[in-house]
Amino acid sequence: MENDTKYPHNKARLEQFSDGVFAIAITLLALEIHVPSLYSNDFAKSFVEISKLLPNIITFVISFVAIAIFWVNHHQLTQTMGLIKRRILWSNILFLLFITLIPFATNVVSVNPNNHLAILTYSLIMFGGSISFSIARYFVHKSLGEEHVSMSRSYIGPFIYLLAVVLSPVSIIGTYVLLAIPLFFYFLPKSSRAFPKAS
Amino acid sequence: MENDTKYPHNKARLEQFSDGVFAIAITLLALEIHVPSLYSNDFAKSFVEISKLLPNIITFVISFVAIAIFWVNHHQLTQTMGLIKRRILWSNILFLLFITLIPFATNVVSVNPNNHLAILTYSLIMFGGSISFSIARYFVHKSLGEEHVSMSRSYIGPFIYLLAVVLSPVSIIGTYVLLAIPLFFYFLPKSSRAFPKAS
Amino acid sequence: MENDTKYPHNKARLEQFSDGVFAIAITLLALEIHVPSLYSNDFAKSFVEISKLLPNIITFVISFVAIAIFWVNHHQLTQTMGLIKRRILWSNILFLLFITLIPFATNVVSVNPNNHLAILTYSLIMFGGSISFSIARYFVHKSLGEEHVSMSRSYIGPFIYLLAVVLSPVSIIGTYVLLAIPLFFYFLPKSSRAFPKAS
Amino acid sequence: MENDTKYPHNKARLEQFSDGVFAIAITLLALEIHVPSLYSNDFAKSFVEISKLLPNIITFVISFVAIAIFWVNHHQLTQTMGLIKRRILWSNILFLLFITLIPFATNVVSVNPNNHLAILTYSLIMFGGSISFSIARYFVHKSLGEEHVSMSRSYIGPFIYLLAVVLSPVSIIGTYVLLAIPLFFYFLPKSSRAFPKAS
Repeated sequence: MENDTKYPHNKARLEQFSDGVFAIAITLLALEIHVPSLYSNDFAKSFVEISKLLPNIITFVISFVAIAIFWVNHHQLTQTMGLIKRRILWSNILFLLFITLIPFATNVVSVNPNNHLAILTYSLIMFGGSISFSIARYFVHKSLGEEHVSMSRSYIGPFIYLLAVVLSPVSIIGTYVLLAIPLFFYFLPKSSRAFPKAS
Repeated sequence: MENDTKYPHNKARLEQFSDGVFAIAITLLALEIHVPSLYSNDFAKSFVEISKLLPNIITFVISFVAIAIFWVNHHQLTQTMGLIKRRILWSNILFLLFITLIPFATNVVSVNPNNHLAILTYSLIMFGGSISFSIARYFVHKSLGEEHVSMSRSYIGPFIYLLAVVLSPVSIIGTYVLLAIPLFFYFLPKSSRAFPKAS
Repeated sequence: MENDTKYPHNKARLEQFSDGVFAIAITLLALEIHVPSLYSNDFAKSFVEISKLLPNIITFVISFVAIAIFWVNHHQLTQTMGLIKRRILWSNILFLLFITLIPFATNVVSVNPNNHLAILTYSLIMFGGSISFSIARYFVHKSLGEEHVSMSRSYIGPFIYLLAVVLSPVSIIGTYVLLAIPLFFYFLPKSSRAFPKAS
Repeated sequence: MENDTKYPHNKARLEQFSDGVFAIAITLLALEIHVPSLYSNDFAKSFVEISKLLPNIITFVISFVAIAIFWVNHHQLTQTMGLIKRRILWSNILFLLFITLIPFATNVVSVNPNNHLAILTYSLIMFGGSISFSIARYFVHKSLGEEHVSMSRSYIGPFIYLLAVVLSPVSIIGTYVLLAIPLFFYFLPKSSRAFPKAS
């Protein structure tokens, strides 16, 4: 690399590579929904058959929205990026590692919807994605020389997912509720947010 | 996100991410065609074996053309986009959700070509893609400050797919015909279209 | 689309979408190589086991090179593109349809390496890709207003693949040789090509 | 191609296509982790079940980091690229061939973690990626007219992976250690590297 260090890291390619990973991960989610063989043409019987896909479909939608929110946040973060330092590059790659694991985590939960360890696995991977994104954001803001890096929002996601990790061995329903909070929270109008802006 | 709201949503990344989803969904379609083991080298017998793939191949072609048309429409819509408001961003993501489901829907139909519920599932997902695209188009045109948003064309696709949803429990052949209309309609020369332009 | 026809088709997105399809198709090729379970740690036995993958690996390499050549040709063609007319757009999409089928065709041959119909299927799909690319090239050159469109090179690929289609029911070895010609031909230095340039 | 040779190869598309291959290969890695069916809700039993995935997870992380490093190096190399000559184009494509094989190699090792031939296969593919990247780098630097091409760093990766190939029939543990060296080496601060810079 000795000859290449004079070239800074390339933002366009970082975005392009990340978008590829996001697009594949989000499209593979739907691939995990198993296709039923509907032997009978009786509508009621077929409906029973296809309704078994419900846990698959619910986890598909939750993970789809989660990846979409990660993508929206990521595309806003990269716009603020100036010079891409090495630690920004690698915290972004760590973040992508967790994104690639989301289809796996989704599948574990949809195969074992009532299993404590399955929901723990899912929560851990979402926590990993959330915390590594906050780390990347911290490095980006710091590289911009912002004196006081406002991270109030960046604590909430990781904190809720950490709660989900801790709660998962105890209550499955409670963990599902916790996992849904970041999704709904994202769509709240800014003014109605309970969490005050850091000034 | 507090620090980032000053940055508008990024059109280049929206297009890049969407293109990734389109490209993966359209390529995965072919992956669903099962590879036959042709035990005999007798041409006639092998031919019988491979002709069993016919429903696979037909549904592959139909879904390929459908995704391609969605992509052509999408790439024309994004060219008209000015400032990407939040509701444009998220109606686009909703649209992509249905795109990622098309390989699944295609597979359901190709495994169960004569099943009412299978063809209903396919129709529903095409309807979802069609209506969410029209919503995205509506928001884009509105954001451009166009007084009278001409949506005449935008009603046709969702309307035909909605008819397919309603017809699917009654007639499988009729539903297939309805599903084929938007594809053929797209390729008609503009002048010969029965549907008048909104002026 | 009435509101959008004033916008020409977007070359950047056509390239981006096509690159996505190329990248996925070429990466999926390797996915088709089955992973053997090597029960014994005896080197000779394991080697026998892994050598059964040979037809897989050969067809993988052939198809990889074929897709790579298609990509190289495509990326050179799009550089010459001016205004993207509708028929350029759709001949490109038809070309992509055959690209997405190459992993399937590769798999058919690697599962049935000595079957006439399998090699016919492969030849047909390569012929489809080759002829649709030549059609796209023809439309591009015509749109540039080139009086005399030199298509000499564009006839060779489709012609050899068509020969392969015709020969496949008769001779498997002969068909493999024909299928290899376009790959080697591509890497010949220009001066040594037997085919004269159209002047 | 006669009509197109006046157009140089397109760097943007080379990067776009390569990024697609990188993104798919790195995302498919996680797809290879099998989803366990956790029949019991007993935490201890489920844990035993999920801990069987350990070889999968370790090889996933190693290959993820390896592809990420390849990507970082590649994105720095393409920044230095001037005119893309044919041999640069094709050494890049050869490099991508090995990238697409990494998910396969990872799977071979994670299914057969204690098998000599499996780890040999993995080492060979990493060696192929490493040496083809060094070849691409050599051609790029030469095309820039750099008198004395500093390749010191470029020898290390291929050399270590070649050692791994040679060692794999003898010692599995030793080979794993060798395979890990390039990953750790990459993250060392430059000043502490034992390998002197070519001046």
